[in-house]
Amino acid sequence: MTETDFASDNTAGVHPAVLQAIAAAHRGHAPAYGDDELTARAVERLRAELGADAEVFFVWAGTAANVLSMQAMLAPHQAVICADLAHLNVDECGATERFTGSKLLPVPSRGGKLHPDDVRARMRRGPFPHHVEPKVLSVTQATEYGTVYTPGELADLVELAHANGLRVHMDGARLANAAATLELPLRALTADVGVDVLSLGATKNGALGAEAVVFFDRALARDFAYVRKQGLHLASKMRFIAAQFDALFAEGLWLRCACHANAMARRLAERVAGVDGVTITQPVEANAVFAIVPPEAVQQLQRRFRFYVWDEDRSEVRWMTAFDTSEADVDAFAAAIRQAVSASGGR
Amino acid sequence: MTETDFASDNTAGVHPAVLQAIAAAHRGHAPAYGDDELTARAVERLRAELGADAEVFFVWAGTAANVLSMQAMLAPHQAVICADLAHLNVDECGATERFTGSKLLPVPSRGGKLHPDDVRARMRRGPFPHHVEPKVLSVTQATEYGTVYTPGELADLVELAHANGLRVHMDGARLANAAATLELPLRALTADVGVDVLSLGATKNGALGAEAVVFFDRALARDFAYVRKQGLHLASKMRFIAAQFDALFAEGLWLRCACHANAMARRLAERVAGVDGVTITQPVEANAVFAIVPPEAVQQLQRRFRFYVWDEDRSEVRWMTAFDTSEADVDAFAAAIRQAVSASGGR
Amino acid sequence: MTETDFASDNTAGVHPAVLQAIAAAHRGHAPAYGDDELTARAVERLRAELGADAEVFFVWAGTAANVLSMQAMLAPHQAVICADLAHLNVDECGATERFTGSKLLPVPSRGGKLHPDDVRARMRRGPFPHHVEPKVLSVTQATEYGTVYTPGELADLVELAHANGLRVHMDGARLANAAATLELPLRALTADVGVDVLSLGATKNGALGAEAVVFFDRALARDFAYVRKQGLHLASKMRFIAAQFDALFAEGLWLRCACHANAMARRLAERVAGVDGVTITQPVEANAVFAIVPPEAVQQLQRRFRFYVWDEDRSEVRWMTAFDTSEADVDAFAAAIRQAVSASGGR
Amino acid sequence: MTETDFASDNTAGVHPAVLQAIAAAHRGHAPAYGDDELTARAVERLRAELGADAEVFFVWAGTAANVLSMQAMLAPHQAVICADLAHLNVDECGATERFTGSKLLPVPSRGGKLHPDDVRARMRRGPFPHHVEPKVLSVTQATEYGTVYTPGELADLVELAHANGLRVHMDGARLANAAATLELPLRALTADVGVDVLSLGATKNGALGAEAVVFFDRALARDFAYVRKQGLHLASKMRFIAAQFDALFAEGLWLRCACHANAMARRLAERVAGVDGVTITQPVEANAVFAIVPPEAVQQLQRRFRFYVWDEDRSEVRWMTAFDTSEADVDAFAAAIRQAVSASGGR
Repeated sequence: MTETDFASDNTAGVHPAVLQAIAAAHRGHAPAYGDDELTARAVERLRAELGADAEVFFVWAGTAANVLSMQAMLAPHQAVICADLAHLNVDECGATERFTGSKLLPVPSRGGKLHPDDVRARMRRGPFPHHVEPKVLSVTQATEYGTVYTPGELADLVELAHANGLRVHMDGARLANAAATLELPLRALTADVGVDVLSLGATKNGALGAEAVVFFDRALARDFAYVRKQGLHLASKMRFIAAQFDALFAEGLWLRCACHANAMARRLAERVAGVDGVTITQPVEANAVFAIVPPEAVQQLQRRFRFYVWDEDRSEVRWMTAFDTSEADVDAFAAAIRQAVSASGGR
Repeated sequence: MTETDFASDNTAGVHPAVLQAIAAAHRGHAPAYGDDELTARAVERLRAELGADAEVFFVWAGTAANVLSMQAMLAPHQAVICADLAHLNVDECGATERFTGSKLLPVPSRGGKLHPDDVRARMRRGPFPHHVEPKVLSVTQATEYGTVYTPGELADLVELAHANGLRVHMDGARLANAAATLELPLRALTADVGVDVLSLGATKNGALGAEAVVFFDRALARDFAYVRKQGLHLASKMRFIAAQFDALFAEGLWLRCACHANAMARRLAERVAGVDGVTITQPVEANAVFAIVPPEAVQQLQRRFRFYVWDEDRSEVRWMTAFDTSEADVDAFAAAIRQAVSASGGR
Repeated sequence: MTETDFASDNTAGVHPAVLQAIAAAHRGHAPAYGDDELTARAVERLRAELGADAEVFFVWAGTAANVLSMQAMLAPHQAVICADLAHLNVDECGATERFTGSKLLPVPSRGGKLHPDDVRARMRRGPFPHHVEPKVLSVTQATEYGTVYTPGELADLVELAHANGLRVHMDGARLANAAATLELPLRALTADVGVDVLSLGATKNGALGAEAVVFFDRALARDFAYVRKQGLHLASKMRFIAAQFDALFAEGLWLRCACHANAMARRLAERVAGVDGVTITQPVEANAVFAIVPPEAVQQLQRRFRFYVWDEDRSEVRWMTAFDTSEADVDAFAAAIRQAVSASGGR
Repeated sequence: MTETDFASDNTAGVHPAVLQAIAAAHRGHAPAYGDDELTARAVERLRAELGADAEVFFVWAGTAANVLSMQAMLAPHQAVICADLAHLNVDECGATERFTGSKLLPVPSRGGKLHPDDVRARMRRGPFPHHVEPKVLSVTQATEYGTVYTPGELADLVELAHANGLRVHMDGARLANAAATLELPLRALTADVGVDVLSLGATKNGALGAEAVVFFDRALARDFAYVRKQGLHLASKMRFIAAQFDALFAEGLWLRCACHANAMARRLAERVAGVDGVTITQPVEANAVFAIVPPEAVQQLQRRFRFYVWDEDRSEVRWMTAFDTSEADVDAFAAAIRQAVSASGGR
């Protein structure tokens, strides 16, 4: 449609294998609303990765996966502790407050991550009806800064949460990227560390529009069929969401997509790291590169390439790669960055 | 996937041209969230059908189109007058009440349709804060019974609504089928009769998962970008919803699909109308056939064909056809009906 | 303030003993939000009437008692079966839908009362996420028509509800009037027949603004301190609501007030029953008289007395009495009715 | 009931004149829901103070006044900028998020007050449906720290808000105390500086349970009769809320009450300011004293006097005075403080 950009992994296209799976399902009739064989198969594929006991529900959008997860875990007087820059808190137009009635309690992040000390400070002693009751801790893996929690960091947060009666939600819009970086199975970052509910993303990783809510604590899933319907995300032709997961999880395609996207981010970072006037600001642990670049260079680059300015005051930009970003794309972009920064006189 | 069924038009597959349009868009990057060229083109195609001034927003699901339309038209103390059997009232798990906080005021339908006298009886005189304020009249075209409002009937309802300060919403999940029956353009059933907001369906008519909210009263669309995002239906890879509308509205494919589905319903009705023990209960004006059939015949048929029992007490069933129901499918099903009814001894 | 009217029992004043109890509490400081001794004492007085295990929460308004009861019993995808003319359904501006997100499923009443057959018809088989799940049956005692359920009628409804997994709520805005009529303790109409949650009214029975939510199923009360606060009904100076209940329940004042109001309604009914042109339309079992009266007589009467026309088409009016309606008030009103009806030429 | 405490101004009693006004209204019938003469008179008294064009609505609770004000000013995708320690944000159990669906955007306060620079940083450029749209600025006068905005400070904040399309709400639970300190009429702190909607408190200033929502921007009041009913705060016996305002605003009683409470706070601060081991932490501009006191002294004092520890880590306490705190109460408390601090060995 247009040339590759670095705006987001959701400006990417659809992986050919995903498209093929949709095409393979397009003929003939099948039960609606998920009562079909393809949905059953896709659920089993996710269970093979995440645990045989996991309850899996497909939805179209990551914001929906997050918000409906919250609905499954919260009463309206209960609250969510999350990072200040969490998608849930910043980029979902207040949909959690809107739909659940609950309050978010943002905690300043450290390099995108929550730190147990900061979380502990938002906990509460004893019931007190004037204050909301923290009930969910939401962590994002990989984070908005493209950083990645280790299993140990996750386990510490989960332990703290559970010890205080909180459930743990993981926003895994880019969980695949984190798993690729850590070279660990998805289960090691979710079920094995005690996550209760997972928003599992596929759209940013080669799908057309497919996300899943995965319950490791099955009791929380009890009414979720209703929650999803009332939450406007029960697809009538569900098999076409399922087909996308089926393709991505059939033979590890999800991992190859994520590895490639990560590799392209590292390649980009390496290509521009030494450039005078470019400062990489975050560890490149997933598929994002954050950098400070002179404002004139930003302006010049944005004439040719789409990407976001993350922090205008610092002139910090975000460059994202995707499953379909090519080495040539990266190299051309890196060359353009070098040229633009050089033209701007460096810092 | 499985053999053709008569359960619903949403158990159907995806039209090859729709699939082709998705495939054509799958490569390369494009701006997310609808800021892409394909979305712009699909919007223009709908405007060409519905009016140059219409504001068009794509979503994934018909329930979402209905509920978010309501959010655009209502304050929480305001109410919706609708038919008792409207999808909005019965089949959306209370999502309108849930999302908007508003009350539905159901009116008994006559053959699926609202009658002005019944609507008038739910109107109110003067403000009275103990009672909700009716503010929207929602009509379904074609109705749940597969019947179709004439333009004159619609105009009467709209006039009544507007004269009483109500806005008019049309649930057009099967508007294409109504237009096909009436041999009228979509505009003649919407903008021209004064509808304010339309939920326009495509999923049941050959798409994979694509619906639109169309505002003829543009003032109501002012905040809808927020409403859609907060309502969990802003697609990141929007171009793939747009592609579906683009295909259906490029050269009148929507009309051919609807004409075919309607013709299959008429064919089915004709094939079974004379069968002793089968009573067609509703005029077959769209793609549904309602019939009373002996319970034993229903049981026998459901072993081979999926369809819904609509009213168990009366043993009334609903058979629906779709764009991909073939003449052979219909004839085989009609033969099976005849056989089953005969075996059951007729009525 | 003005002369006695027959508009409602909430146009009445405040019983002197209630006023005295407020005055007695007005000096000095006491813990806020219900942590004071007077609140504790008033709770104990209600427990003495209703059961030692009952959980009691005070609020200001009957609508709040109803809506917050619903919040304690429902998830948003669950629904309330209630009479079509229930206060909850008609006269609370959709507050239940607004606050809980739940749907009401109104059932046509028979003389104000729910009949088990009609309730049964709204029950459901099996989970089905497209439809809301009935979870609460709400009965009103005495009903909007001033009729009274017998303990047997209540027990039948409760049994039906519990057998189908529904909880039972009683809107007891006028429970005192029902108990007075039946000459039964409050417990016999609530705990003893299996009611789960009760909205217990005092405002209409001599208080200034005092209602209670009483949980017989204590598990439902677990989060109610939060629900009440978030529902805007945690009074800071709670002792002044408590004082009202303390006065009414100290020595059976609630019962004397209700008996008097009921007696005045019966007196009014007796005085006008024989008048040609007046038709009493409902059994006078509490403190309301419903009658059909010629429209000209209604007009003439409303120049001097406030009361409501209940059904304009039938020219049916509602006359309500209160704890402070005097025999002289009734006799004067009855005389005026006779005169007005006579002047209108009877029917 | 108990001895005077310093926990809050809502642990105080009811002013005798308020009680007298209630008593004077207790006999006879009057139209319900605010259609009575006493309500009309009380509204006029508030208009005399606040402006002839003001729209006035009575409610029972300050939290309700705040939350329903927000409902009148916000769509669910819009947000409220407020101080981090605002009652709205911290002490209302998330009721605004719950009822309106909107998000709060807390800003760190400076001595309890909002500073324009901090507010400006939360403003936004251009519409962007991923982010909530700030639409209300809520200021608290006097603040949670007992500090007071000058008219100039308020005007600056209002100007900033209005220039950015935001409406201005004032939480005036203790507006009387601020006006008393500044020796200015209520109007000078509200209408004259451009406030759009005011939550006006009376409960903390001698009433039993009476608050008002006052609209200076009358357009915002259009649907408020519905909002109040649906928000569970339409009192049936409204005249008894009105009576409280009538008494407080008849002859300046509100001002005498507030002046006295303020004087008692100043007296307390003066009595303990020189005590070694006591550090007054906030300017004493209303009826609160914040002080750091040794933990042992706090423990000893709390055996005899109720008050809150505000910040456990700093051992900072809050002492509040009310209209009915006497000089003797203050002196006895100050003496106890001196003694306890001395016994603890000072800091």
